[in-house]
Amino acid sequence: MDLLNKTLSHIQPLNENAMQQARERLDSLLKPPGSLGRLEEIAVVMAGITGSGGGSLKKKTIIVMCADNGVTDEMVSSFPRAISALVAETMLGGISGVSVLARHAGAEIMVIDIGLEGDVSDGRIINRKIRRATGNIARGPAMDREEALRAIETGIELASSAIDRGADILGTGEIGIGNTTTASAVLHAFTGKNLDEIVGRGAGLSDEGLLHKKDVIRRAVELNRPDPDDGVDVLSRVGGFDIAGLAGCYLAAAARRKPIVIDGFIAGVAAVAAMKMAPAARDFMFASHASAEPGVSAISGVLGLAPMLALEMRLGEGTGCALAFHIIEAALKIMNEMGTFKDIGMEATAP
Amino acid sequence: MDLLNKTLSHIQPLNENAMQQARERLDSLLKPPGSLGRLEEIAVVMAGITGSGGGSLKKKTIIVMCADNGVTDEMVSSFPRAISALVAETMLGGISGVSVLARHAGAEIMVIDIGLEGDVSDGRIINRKIRRATGNIARGPAMDREEALRAIETGIELASSAIDRGADILGTGEIGIGNTTTASAVLHAFTGKNLDEIVGRGAGLSDEGLLHKKDVIRRAVELNRPDPDDGVDVLSRVGGFDIAGLAGCYLAAAARRKPIVIDGFIAGVAAVAAMKMAPAARDFMFASHASAEPGVSAISGVLGLAPMLALEMRLGEGTGCALAFHIIEAALKIMNEMGTFKDIGMEATAP
Repeated sequence: MDLLNKTLSHIQPLNENAMQQARERLDSLLKPPGSLGRLEEIAVVMAGITGSGGGSLKKKTIIVMCADNGVTDEMVSSFPRAISALVAETMLGGISGVSVLARHAGAEIMVIDIGLEGDVSDGRIINRKIRRATGNIARGPAMDREEALRAIETGIELASSAIDRGADILGTGEIGIGNTTTASAVLHAFTGKNLDEIVGRGAGLSDEGLLHKKDVIRRAVELNRPDPDDGVDVLSRVGGFDIAGLAGCYLAAAARRKPIVIDGFIAGVAAVAAMKMAPAARDFMFASHASAEPGVSAISGVLGLAPMLALEMRLGEGTGCALAFHIIEAALKIMNEMGTFKDIGMEATAP
Repeated sequence: MDLLNKTLSHIQPLNENAMQQARERLDSLLKPPGSLGRLEEIAVVMAGITGSGGGSLKKKTIIVMCADNGVTDEMVSSFPRAISALVAETMLGGISGVSVLARHAGAEIMVIDIGLEGDVSDGRIINRKIRRATGNIARGPAMDREEALRAIETGIELASSAIDRGADILGTGEIGIGNTTTASAVLHAFTGKNLDEIVGRGAGLSDEGLLHKKDVIRRAVELNRPDPDDGVDVLSRVGGFDIAGLAGCYLAAAARRKPIVIDGFIAGVAAVAAMKMAPAARDFMFASHASAEPGVSAISGVLGLAPMLALEMRLGEGTGCALAFHIIEAALKIMNEMGTFKDIGMEATAP
């Protein structure tokens, strides 16, 4: 069996028994039942993922998939394509947005060149280049099916290697000029949602630029006719190597029963793609923040996951994940460290 | 001049010059302008507060005001009043919700008995009891004007002492059965907002209990006729010692130019009271989370401050502040640690 199908076959539901025990523990703690809101929900899901309440996040890894997109030939971005490789190089130098926030969170970053057009000189960037940028989806498919499968399996392999090296939680990030365009096309293909609801200004388009971007996406989906019931087909026709690679990360996390945090819009679209391939994979995901990209609320609806942070960020790179790790750790500490009514000699006084 | 008026006279606006420099620095960093959203706004406000960009939060202190409320005689809470003192004692034992989250955030907690009915035996709880619980606001005023002034000045003194001991940021928390009732009455008195918009279930009321709670609040405001233009009057007639004490904390933070984080509903109502006494005090506040109490969105509207976290918490105690500290620190690290386009040899390519 190939790696993708093998991974899909390993994805099992959350452990209901562990979740029930976590709920009981939470209700015994020194607080009105449910009063820690979504921190309690997070603790319950973590129990369902790992099979036991509590635990800790000793090692946290953010996987950043970097790739370029041929569709930038259509002038859908306000930044030049060459900047992707430059930004990727700043990551391990510690001066990019996600570098700073990952350090703040005590997380490591894995940066992968999965399809940058240029070459990067920093040897710490993992070279798994499928090809130098995708095709221009306004003119033809982004990649062929075999390349899409390779990109997904690359994501599976790298997430698995992070878990092998001890990661207790994964985060998802990406770099790639033009990837809000490809991500919007993928989301549109999967959901049929109106482009006005899902297409945003990316790194900073004008009103006119936004109209043009929507037009390009509409044309790309009409031309390439992705099959919404076939995740690999959608990714290959209108996706990107970064999105396909991240979809693989979600599948690996679910198969290995590790939590994985969704960053913003592009990583969210990859999460939708993973859910299309394996509906149960969704249960291992946490949504970090409500990005300023409008498509993020559409993604939350499809996944049924609400974000934890309301910071109107739209940088990508995995920046939201780094901040969400602190919240998920807080939820685990509530389980591990809070006292119970019994500890202070009282019956639980649930109203 | 008395301490309250002296404090009010020291409150000055944010430093516009430092804010402008912070904006310029943020726009030079390796990201599309504005793409770190509210993290950037936080960094700018921090610059306006401290007078310089960057900086760090070496010492973080959450001030927890504990007091009981005579209005619990009206059966507005699902918990017995005696539990306030018990919960206060768990705080310094490290097993309450805020103890766990403060430890996670590297913050210290100051717990103050500003009006508990019972006595606490833990000597680490600071005894500044104004009186054993307020009067029942459904039958008369919560306290007299002199007691309200003492409670506010107690908050000023304690926040100042935390700052004297090195706190770079303050958080606000409270304990007190019945204090969502008094807080709702104060908010209703200040804003005239419909009680359906501002009164919630507190620690867990039934539908019937909620109707009764609204009725008690309506009667309390009608009976006591607080003057919405006089913050001290509103606090004394329908408030609580916890709310008045926290209002003093906000005033002291503003006078001493330190950031102060609002927890949930009760601490938010205290923030509104502080703003009524000194409009510029608002600029030194950060809203941490969108509490499950409905009044929090009314408070956000009055203060013009949006919360950072969407966790549907309603425990109080300062739990939201502890989580928000991590976000504010992240904003400062963005200022201090991110590289610029110039660092990588590029002109800033703002679109």
